Parts: sequence; C-alpha cells; structure tokens
Amino acid sequence: MDQNRYLQVINRAIEDLDLEREPRGLYEPIRYILDLGGKRIRPVILLMACDIYNGDREAALPAALAVEVFHNFSLIHDDIMDRAPLRRGKPTVHENWSANTAILSGDTMLVKAYEQLLKLPEHILKPALEIFNRTAAEVCEGQQYDMDFENRDDVTLEEYLEMIRLKTAVLLGAALKLGGLVANAPREDLDHLYTFGIETGMVFQLKDDLLDTYGDSNLFGKKQYGDIVNNKKTYLYLLTLQSLKGKEREKLARLYSSPETDPELKIRKVLHYFDKAGAKELTEAAILEHYEKAQAAFHALQIPDEKKQILSDFTGLLLGRKF
Amino acid sequence: MDQNRYLQVINRAIEDLDLEREPRGLYEPIRYILDLGGKRIRPVILLMACDIYNGDREAALPAALAVEVFHNFSLIHDDIMDRAPLRRGKPTVHENWSANTAILSGDTMLVKAYEQLLKLPEHILKPALEIFNRTAAEVCEGQQYDMDFENRDDVTLEEYLEMIRLKTAVLLGAALKLGGLVANAPREDLDHLYTFGIETGMVFQLKDDLLDTYGDSNLFGKKQYGDIVNNKKTYLYLLTLQSLKGKEREKLARLYSSPETDPELKIRKVLHYFDKAGAKELTEAAILEHYEKAQAAFHALQIPDEKKQILSDFTGLLLGRKF
Repeated sequence: MDQNRYLQVINRAIEDLDLEREPRGLYEPIRYILDLGGKRIRPVILLMACDIYNGDREAALPAALAVEVFHNFSLIHDDIMDRAPLRRGKPTVHENWSANTAILSGDTMLVKAYEQLLKLPEHILKPALEIFNRTAAEVCEGQQYDMDFENRDDVTLEEYLEMIRLKTAVLLGAALKLGGLVANAPREDLDHLYTFGIETGMVFQLKDDLLDTYGDSNLFGKKQYGDIVNNKKTYLYLLTLQSLKGKEREKLARLYSSPETDPELKIRKVLHYFDKAGAKELTEAAILEHYEKAQAAFHALQIPDEKKQILSDFTGLLLGRKF
Repeated sequence: MDQNRYLQVINRAIEDLDLEREPRGLYEPIRYILDLGGKRIRPVILLMACDIYNGDREAALPAALAVEVFHNFSLIHDDIMDRAPLRRGKPTVHENWSANTAILSGDTMLVKAYEQLLKLPEHILKPALEIFNRTAAEVCEGQQYDMDFENRDDVTLEEYLEMIRLKTAVLLGAALKLGGLVANAPREDLDHLYTFGIETGMVFQLKDDLLDTYGDSNLFGKKQYGDIVNNKKTYLYLLTLQSLKGKEREKLARLYSSPETDPELKIRKVLHYFDKAGAKELTEAAILEHYEKAQAAFHALQIPDEKKQILSDFTGLLLGRKF
C-alpha cells in the first residue's frame, strides 16, 4: 500500500470520529485542529508497522487514531504555552477561540485518545496502554524541559538530546511499536521498531536544527535563520557555546539572547561563531550517528527484505529526499 | 473501618506516589496540589463501596488514587480558567508557578490517573477504563457548559441540572461504581451505586446553591451571598428568572449581571425577587426529589443492613449534619 493510501485511510477514520456533539464549544475546536491535516506521520507509520507483520489494519486503526489525537492534543496545549498564533498556516485554537477553550478541548482530546485505545483487541489492551501512558508522560516531560531550557544558560548537549528524545522521538517510537504489537510482531522486533522510531526522530529533529541555518530555504519552505532570530537554543548553538570558555562564552550567550540586536547583524555574528566551532560538521556527525543507530535497528528486524521497503518509505517521508 | 481510617489509607497512598522526579518543574506542582489535602471524598467512597462487597481494598487503591488524581487535575485546569487565586486557602498552581506550568502539570496528572488504573486486576481493566473514560469526558463537558452559561441569559433549569450532573455528580457515581467493580458487586448493584452517587452529588450541589443564600454563614464557614455578588447563575437565580416575563425578567437579569451595583443593595434586591418566586422552597423541593432518588437507589442495593451504614456515613460526610 503506498503512502497516499495510508493517508486516505487515516483521514477517512478522522472524518468518521463522532465530534459533531454537544457542547459545540468543546468539540468544534477538536474537529478544527484534526481537520488542519498534515502528513499524519504517526498514525501512518503505525499502520505501516502493522502491515509489515501482516497484521489486521482495521484492528490497528484505533491505535493510529489514538496517537494522532494525542499528538494534536499536545499541539493545542504547546501552542498556548508558546503563544503561537499559527498552526499549519491557520489560527491556533487559543487564537480562534480562547486559551480556556484550548485547555479544555485539549484535555478532552487526551481522554478521547484513551477512548480509542479501548477499542483495541483485549489481549493487547494492557501492553498498548502501558506504551501509550509512558510515552504520554514523557512527551509532557519533554515539553517541560523545553520550557525550562528557555530560562537556563547552562543547558548541555546531553540534556538537549534528552529533551528532543522526549518531546519528539518517543511518540514516533511508540507509534511503530504499537503497530507491531497489534500485528503480534516478535518481542525483540517491538524493541527494534521502538529504537528505529526514536533514532529516526532524533535525526529528524537534529536535521531540522541544521537546516534552519545551513539548509536551502527555498527548498524547505521555511524561513532560514528563524532559530537564530528567535534565540532558540538549538543543537548548533549549544555545541558552539559548549566549545567556548569565560568571556567568549558570555559574549555569545549575550548576543544570542539579546532581543534588540539587528537581525541581519545578529545572524552574521552568530554564523561566525558557529563556523569557528565547526557546528555544521559536528551536527552532521551527530545526525549520522543517530541515523546509523536507526539503520542498525532497521536491519535487526526479523522481516523479509520486501517488507523493509515499507519502512524505508517512512524514512523518506520523515526525512525528505535530502538525507 | 471509620472514615478517618479511610482518609489515612488514601493519604498514605498519595504520599507514596513517586513524584520526586525530574523535571521538578513538572512534578513539584503535582505534589503541591495533592498535598493540599481535603476530605478526599471520591477515593474514600470508592474504598467504601469496595468494602461493602468485601472486596480487596489493596486492589481498589489504584482506582481510588486515579479518581483523586483526576479530580485534582480538573481543579488545576478549572482554576486557570476561572482565574482563581486560592485553592483550599493556598495559592493555586497557576498563581504559585505559571499558567503554562498549571496546564502541563495538569496534563501529566491526567496521564498519571490512567497509569494508576493500569494497576487494576486485568479482568476488570477494560470496564474500569470505560467508566473512567466516559466520566472524564463528561467532566470536561460539564466545565464547558459552566463556562458557556456565563455568557448566556437563556439557561434553563434543565440545562443547569445537566451541567452540575456532568461537572460534579458523575465522578461521585463513577467512584462508587469503580469500588463496586473491583469487589465484583452484582451488575445491578453497580448501576444502583452509580445512581446513588449521581443523585447524592446533585443534592450536594443544589444544597451548596441553597446555603449560599439561605444557610447560616457561621455554621458553614463560607461567606454568605457570594453567588449573588459574583453573578453566579445558581439554581435559585435560574428558577427565579424563569418565573418572570418581559420587562421584569430583563430587570432581574440586568440587576444580577451588573458589576457596579452596591453589593448590599444588590443582595437585598435579589433576595426580594428570590422570595417572591419561592426560590427557597422550590430549591428545597428539588433537593428532596434528588435525595429520594438517592435513597431509592440505596435501598435497591443487595447488601445486608449492617453494610448500609458505610454508605450512610458517606452521605453524612458529603452533606453534613444539616440534611
């Protein structure tokens, strides 16, 4: 089944969710955020993992919906916390309605995610909930670290990697593992699927950091240097900071966090620091390291080669043609 | 087992929750709100219901923790939405930390509630989660109706009753039902327990409305007429409004919602309307109606008389000696 077909299955299932309910003020924002679309990466890879082991795709669909609804719950709440005005080019829920609505509709989505999981075959209900629960708590922890880091100037690279693992990677790992679980994949493969998801997620996030500074902005549809302008503590910044000592370190920290600096000048100065520290090469090396871990987990899967194509498709989906 | 002993069991279990974890910014507020104490009505009645059917109290404890953690999650988020500065005489989580922290710590508590439920015996996991899930969604719906009602001047008594059923009563019903479920109570008794909890919750909430205006403020430790001063659309107000037509109705609506009115004068004028409509007597009649429904459910339980004392204790706990 090709990727578009997976997306169609997910989108149809989302359409079929019973959200035309009262009170409208609670359910309308849920319908709104779910209808903003996107690549539906998490539910798609969950169904892919299920297919690899010839599992029952219908049986896996509730788990796919659960991870997608959960992901959108976290987007609604993160957007409040980040005061983000736009999501996928449309007003965020708290902008379109209110912060109160965004809080409460988000809460309801989290409950609705569990409601989906309850539709799974009873013999995998408990392990599925265990994976999901642990992941949900970790995603919250990741968001907390992310917020904490904004007010800290001593964040280490290790802490940063742990933050992106929690905030982004674990849900990808959980999605793959849940898909394998529904299909009764061997226990070791569940672990490999999880690792593959985690490491691919790390590659994805680090690549995002890299491309903001060293990518071709026209190719990626994202404005370049946004992270630098917005003082975002990326992998590039943290490793550069870590390479400096004393006054030089303070100088970069001040430059980076300063809100008044002329953006053009700030970018030029920061790039100078990045280049001197070899930020591009070191980030590429870190990406490669995680990519290789992902590949190792991939090759450890006990599946025929023709099935591996499905997961390669996922890597392509997530990482784009550039990697 | 007397009520204090139940409370001790709950408080010890709450102390034992593993919340001394990183990131501190996420888990500290959870520890804070759970340690504010209170009567722990929901977990206590859950254990009581389990005891009535000679169930294993240890096995029921995770469900008791789940409802208490869930209840406190809803308090944290409701307090943000209501901009409440205090909770049990202490600063609310969003006051003590920030709204962002209150959102995220609340989210984590909701996940932690499910984590507790996963510790239940596997054969009741699915029905327990079904009760819990439905209740959790209903509590969110109740809060949404409550917020909607603030901006509406055509709320009917029926809508108000449905709102308090969702926002307050269903969690009491669910707590009792979960306790019975763990103890393998007969199916009909689970329904009766649920109805008993719902109707007792309705009595509790309506009595709260009544006492704000017609209670002895010294006896109840709550400032009298707070609902009137704060324009709260209570049962008393809505039934009085419903008894009026045309200009008189508009006059009361304007008086009640006006923020500039001198409080003393506003109270005197509103009381005049209440008295003319027979608000006290009609609310008492409504309370009696729900009380009788609770009693009917209570008497329908297939339990020996000596066990009924436990639930009577609960009614006393919830409603106080005055009823």
